[in-house]
Amino acid sequence: MIQQPIKLTRGVPPPESFPVEQLAECAVAVLHKYSDAILQYGPAGGFLPLRQYLAQLHGVPEYRVVVGQGSLQLQDLCARMMITPGAITYVEEPTYDRTLTILRRAGALVIGFPLDGNGPDVDAIEERLKDEGERPLLFYIIPDFQNPSGTVLSLKKRERIAALAQEYGFWIIEDVPYRRLRYRGAEPPTVYSLAPDRVFLMSSYSKLISPGLRVGYMIMPETIARPLLKFIEDTYITPGYLAQAIVYEYIQRGWLEPNIETLKALYEPRLDAMLGALDEHMAGLATWRRPDGGFFVGMTLQAEVRAKVLLAQAKAAGLQLTDGRGFFASGGGDRFVRLPFCALTPEEIREGIRRLAGVIQSLG
Amino acid sequence: MIQQPIKLTRGVPPPESFPVEQLAECAVAVLHKYSDAILQYGPAGGFLPLRQYLAQLHGVPEYRVVVGQGSLQLQDLCARMMITPGAITYVEEPTYDRTLTILRRAGALVIGFPLDGNGPDVDAIEERLKDEGERPLLFYIIPDFQNPSGTVLSLKKRERIAALAQEYGFWIIEDVPYRRLRYRGAEPPTVYSLAPDRVFLMSSYSKLISPGLRVGYMIMPETIARPLLKFIEDTYITPGYLAQAIVYEYIQRGWLEPNIETLKALYEPRLDAMLGALDEHMAGLATWRRPDGGFFVGMTLQAEVRAKVLLAQAKAAGLQLTDGRGFFASGGGDRFVRLPFCALTPEEIREGIRRLAGVIQSLG
Repeated sequence: MIQQPIKLTRGVPPPESFPVEQLAECAVAVLHKYSDAILQYGPAGGFLPLRQYLAQLHGVPEYRVVVGQGSLQLQDLCARMMITPGAITYVEEPTYDRTLTILRRAGALVIGFPLDGNGPDVDAIEERLKDEGERPLLFYIIPDFQNPSGTVLSLKKRERIAALAQEYGFWIIEDVPYRRLRYRGAEPPTVYSLAPDRVFLMSSYSKLISPGLRVGYMIMPETIARPLLKFIEDTYITPGYLAQAIVYEYIQRGWLEPNIETLKALYEPRLDAMLGALDEHMAGLATWRRPDGGFFVGMTLQAEVRAKVLLAQAKAAGLQLTDGRGFFASGGGDRFVRLPFCALTPEEIREGIRRLAGVIQSLG
Repeated sequence: MIQQPIKLTRGVPPPESFPVEQLAECAVAVLHKYSDAILQYGPAGGFLPLRQYLAQLHGVPEYRVVVGQGSLQLQDLCARMMITPGAITYVEEPTYDRTLTILRRAGALVIGFPLDGNGPDVDAIEERLKDEGERPLLFYIIPDFQNPSGTVLSLKKRERIAALAQEYGFWIIEDVPYRRLRYRGAEPPTVYSLAPDRVFLMSSYSKLISPGLRVGYMIMPETIARPLLKFIEDTYITPGYLAQAIVYEYIQRGWLEPNIETLKALYEPRLDAMLGALDEHMAGLATWRRPDGGFFVGMTLQAEVRAKVLLAQAKAAGLQLTDGRGFFASGGGDRFVRLPFCALTPEEIREGIRRLAGVIQSLG
């Protein structure tokens, strides 16, 4: 019997979640309303009405908002402008693999702080800052339903990290693409709201509308905004305005909030299917987070395994897995498995976890 | 009397040239036909049907085509991947100011070769290569209606530059955004066609459809293509597919060629108005190119002036000019004036040149 492979790999939204007709309506509308602005060269910071909307939403002047071709591009631009070779940067461990690439490519020394159930080990951070006198340039965090682990940073740790950033003068890059995808439970404040002067707040419409539109944004600190906009202008002159205008129109028509509700209704049963399947099949084999939102459940295997062997055995069993090692700044990660649940049906999730448990047992 | 200022500054297309209704039709069509591809994450090289079309057009496999957020972004990505600090790069002098910024930001040493009426001084280039043994990494050229001078590289110089690139193993970055905007006269072959293994061929739909869509592309040399695509994926994962799909649909519907004819019919009288006004007002004050296409006429003043003074006096006379110094890699450029003509009416052009002649006479 040939098994259909199940892709427990990338964290992408399912195609059935894309609001195609609404986006087509928005495209026509904005080409009629704003063609002179959309089709011409213009400000490097993005489509002005969207920047104005985001400025108001976050309580900053419009020049502190930049809308780019996805938020990773904005991370890259920040890294290039700010990081000098050997600069120390802190990350959660595990963390988003693409950010590790970007930090290192810019010449940074990357130091990871292990995550526990409510965020990174802040005692260890404080020790390095206070006792060892280390002076990092920045700390990259994904406080809400972290990629890859699903962890939510507790209020207490948010407050401590914000206070440390103030005291020791490092920047926080707060990346919140999954924040609005909370399926239950109460939302802690952003770190940005606790230390607005020290935080680059980044988010994106990739998980709320569509990734292919490539509309991500950043709230830049006061002192960084103008030089960063100049750096961006020198890189691509003007971003693609059409997709940005479509997102603006989509929001103006009141379609974003209902779409987020639709996504939550689609994803919550998938999260529950994932947690249920883990409870059923993985007890004793692994430990995992129980997030209330986002795209991922991070799991750590009990037994020692080599990632290469795990991936190969999973493939043979009809399962595609992401190599956990990519998420770890300091090495390791062989036992870490990122389990995305949004783009799979509950049936696929249950079958995937059943197969994965079989693979793990066969390795043990 | 308050004079309306005339902007002899940026080389942008006029808003009346944007085919708004056709683009709206294309947007709706592609969202219906390709929504799963357009709205999702996908290949870093761009929207596949457009890459396939360009691959066929240029006779290369599809993986050698990359479509990005304008061609400057692609230049920047190449520079970052290829240039190591101190690498020698050649440019025409004057050349596109934004490219100078990108090369220098990547750490390159930039050497300019003066343009005469049919391209750069190839004897000087050959001397540096042969007699001095210099080994540049790349030579950036805009052979067709060069920005900022309007110069067209002669066939003979194309052949010599292609042969030198083969002999001395440097790359040619051939940037041809204005090539299709030839209003009269015969087209020489691309340098790419003369030395396909040594050339990055870059172009864009910014001047043929709309700049704000941000759709530029590059044909990558065989050995560079795969590492560059990986570098791009690590930078922004996926480009904005919607605008790329719209451009593809626009081409498939047979609308590009008629649009180019419309643009030529709009721009040729503007070029003629520019050349006529220069003949009428500038004889004895300056020399200038007589291009058969493109966006710009490059002019050099006879008298010594300081750019700062020229710009200030022009402003006082109701004229915005671009600072010529930005186009010169080796300094100088005070006497150089870039005159864009596409986004001004013939009346504005004649009035602008009349005012400019008055300013120059007052400085002399």
